Amino acid sequence: MTDDTRSTALAALVDRYCEAWSLASADERAAALRDVWADGATYTDPGTDALDAGGLLAYIAQVHARYPGAKVVRTSVVDVHHDVARFAWQLVRADGSTLPEGLDVVDLDMGALRIRRIVGFFGPLGRT
Amino acid sequence: MTDDTRSTALAALVDRYCEAWSLASADERAAALRDVWADGATYTDPGTDALDAGGLLAYIAQVHARYPGAKVVRTSVVDVHHDVARFAWQLVRADGSTLPEGLDVVDLDMGALRIRRIVGFFGPLGRT
Repeated sequence: MTDDTRSTALAALVDRYCEAWSLASADERAAALRDVWADGATYTDPGTDALDAGGLLAYIAQVHARYPGAKVVRTSVVDVHHDVARFAWQLVRADGSTLPEGLDVVDLDMGALRIRRIVGFFGPLGRT
Repeated sequence: MTDDTRSTALAALVDRYCEAWSLASADERAAALRDVWADGATYTDPGTDALDAGGLLAYIAQVHARYPGAKVVRTSVVDVHHDVARFAWQLVRADGSTLPEGLDVVDLDMGALRIRRIVGFFGPLGRT
């Protein structure tokens, strides 16, 4: 795979993952997650720890209950090296207002092009 | 542990880790790394992958050969949740000039207060 091909494939992977957060239908969110999530993959952010696919979908459903019509949009390139990547994202509410940007750090299965783990951080990183 | 105590302890852990990059003596760098590095911990950044403690110390020695007198300085708070953290850092050369800021994402052994894994990224995250 060339660097450009890999970069395009990874951006598509992350954008499909973002659809698992953004689609209105729970079934469609589950289908999006199935396309990107490796067996045994986990999700951790400040509000939750080590969810599996089912746990993550339930967590996303809570976000949709709180912010009906919200979408998660990637706001950076996917910066990758070796089998790890980072990207920034923002939750956009139905009225277009946004929450502070988050950062996801991803462990990848580069062979299968799937996500093995996501660790997320919320908001800007405080300065010393 | 209170949040404040934990926060102070983690900042001290990361600062001791930064000493493993900054001290002039290879022996002192090794001693600093021994204080913070868990058995089996690994280090990955855009220039290298999955180094163990010995490999990391050799990699740091290469940085010192290239930038004599350089130090690595933490430039953000240590933002932690669950057993993961992120912090920003900068390499400061002997003449005070700096390289672009890096970001390290850390898997922690919170019980032993040691680093289990670091994944580093270099420079600002490109925007879409």
